[in-house]
Amino acid sequence: MENLIIIGSGPAGHTAAIYAARAKLNPLMFEGAFAAGVAAGGQLTTTTEVENFPGFLSIQGPVLMDQMRRQSLHCGARILTETVDKVDVSQRPFKVWAGAQEYQARALIIATGATAKRMNLPGEDRLWQKGISACAVCDGGLPFFRNKVLAVVGGGDSAVEESTYLTKFASKVLMLVRRDVLRASKVMQERAQNNPKIEIMFNTLPVEILGEKSVSGLKIKNAMTKAESTLDIGGLFYAIGHLPNTSFLGGQLALDEAGYIKTQPGTTQTNVEGVFAAGDVQDKRYRQAVTSAGTGCMAALEAEHFLSTHSH
Amino acid sequence: MENLIIIGSGPAGHTAAIYAARAKLNPLMFEGAFAAGVAAGGQLTTTTEVENFPGFLSIQGPVLMDQMRRQSLHCGARILTETVDKVDVSQRPFKVWAGAQEYQARALIIATGATAKRMNLPGEDRLWQKGISACAVCDGGLPFFRNKVLAVVGGGDSAVEESTYLTKFASKVLMLVRRDVLRASKVMQERAQNNPKIEIMFNTLPVEILGEKSVSGLKIKNAMTKAESTLDIGGLFYAIGHLPNTSFLGGQLALDEAGYIKTQPGTTQTNVEGVFAAGDVQDKRYRQAVTSAGTGCMAALEAEHFLSTHSH
Repeated sequence: MENLIIIGSGPAGHTAAIYAARAKLNPLMFEGAFAAGVAAGGQLTTTTEVENFPGFLSIQGPVLMDQMRRQSLHCGARILTETVDKVDVSQRPFKVWAGAQEYQARALIIATGATAKRMNLPGEDRLWQKGISACAVCDGGLPFFRNKVLAVVGGGDSAVEESTYLTKFASKVLMLVRRDVLRASKVMQERAQNNPKIEIMFNTLPVEILGEKSVSGLKIKNAMTKAESTLDIGGLFYAIGHLPNTSFLGGQLALDEAGYIKTQPGTTQTNVEGVFAAGDVQDKRYRQAVTSAGTGCMAALEAEHFLSTHSH
Repeated sequence: MENLIIIGSGPAGHTAAIYAARAKLNPLMFEGAFAAGVAAGGQLTTTTEVENFPGFLSIQGPVLMDQMRRQSLHCGARILTETVDKVDVSQRPFKVWAGAQEYQARALIIATGATAKRMNLPGEDRLWQKGISACAVCDGGLPFFRNKVLAVVGGGDSAVEESTYLTKFASKVLMLVRRDVLRASKVMQERAQNNPKIEIMFNTLPVEILGEKSVSGLKIKNAMTKAESTLDIGGLFYAIGHLPNTSFLGGQLALDEAGYIKTQPGTTQTNVEGVFAAGDVQDKRYRQAVTSAGTGCMAALEAEHFLSTHSH
């Protein structure tokens, strides 16, 4: 019987592990084996330069995650490189299945993150993070993207947000919208239309990403005429949404309409006592490494408090 | 006219500065000149070893804050070593006074922290962080405190919380309570009384902290009999509360009964549009460097969103 099982190994999971281990909860982490298509360590392992994690002028994403992992181990957390398939939170102790094994725990922290949706276009795997990103706030300020023509794929509110953000750095931002209207709200539509640096291209489908060592162009197709053409761009941002990794929960925790775990605002408490959620799996608004880390800490402190007040 | 003024320079202030500068808001930070009795950089500057900030196996508190400060500057934030005396948030632009100067800003982030109350006993300045601490979660797990007799000063809920937490590491925890009863809630009183490692000493006043290079004893006085005696202890924790640094606001923002800035839960939005609060000044529950940093990031993203949707 475990005190605390932590599912997930991004900044939220590892910060929870560090705090829980220091609180002598002897936590067990399932870091996942390429869970949800992402390596253990989470989304930061798919990035290169990180300039906005406080304390590091600049650090490679995978290096930062490796340091957090070493810190978790150093503090006494145990880490299994397994993906959790299923949980049962209908009663305590909670049950967790990974591989063929069943585990039991008095408390759970779920920190399985969200995965940015990709299009799986030709060229995408080869050029990922070499001019392709799914996070303008994370990557838009990098020198690489400055004063270039950038393309944003998507037509919703977050596509407008990301495009507007990128106009701070880009010479021009092309919003590529599949349909002939923006899905974004009225006020966001106006923001995009009134920004002289944003050009909205309707009925436009990306077809192939071009470039040798980094992105240099994008082959597109007109959804109406089927005519193909090529855009010269220096960067491509996907803003087609995220998929919170909550399917393994099988509907046992309350989720919002987009599939994110609901928590009591300002805490990490889910609707099941003793089950806490931290990081992007419960956050569709901020989604930064440091905000995830913050909620991981909160979850560990809340779990510690829960365990010290519930002896069984 | 500034876009954004950030008041305070702990993890919340600097993370806000890093994010705001990267978003090209050209933020101006007032880091304070020994504001509220604490050096620029905040409470971490009063600590030594920090083992729970994710990414660093171990780092000195002042070094971590120095690195964050360099990072803020590197990203383009401007920093003034002045203490803000007064603000006017009754209308936009907001006004900020520091020294003899008046500044104006379209948005404000308040990250002035909270200061742990001290007793100013003889020996306290000399032995601070050499066996004296005001944060069990931060410091209790350090090797220094392991298997020692520790004293906790205070009789409220947080004194019981801190004492209980310390029993994970200490051989024994002495709770020194000024009165003949605990101020803590019933359930917390029972927790303290049922913990075999906690001994509650009522009517006990600390008088002087003893020790050459680190804490070795505490002179105490019985509040009833006035008799003095000496306890052999290896560490002393103050749990007599914190003072949020909000007096300079002059009542212009909604505060809770303890003086902390109220925010909409799960955000950093105060009751005044365009004014955001991050870090310990709005958090009496978690109070960790990484949770502060997380809310600093949130405040910058919210300020960026506010500024991009309010042109004046």
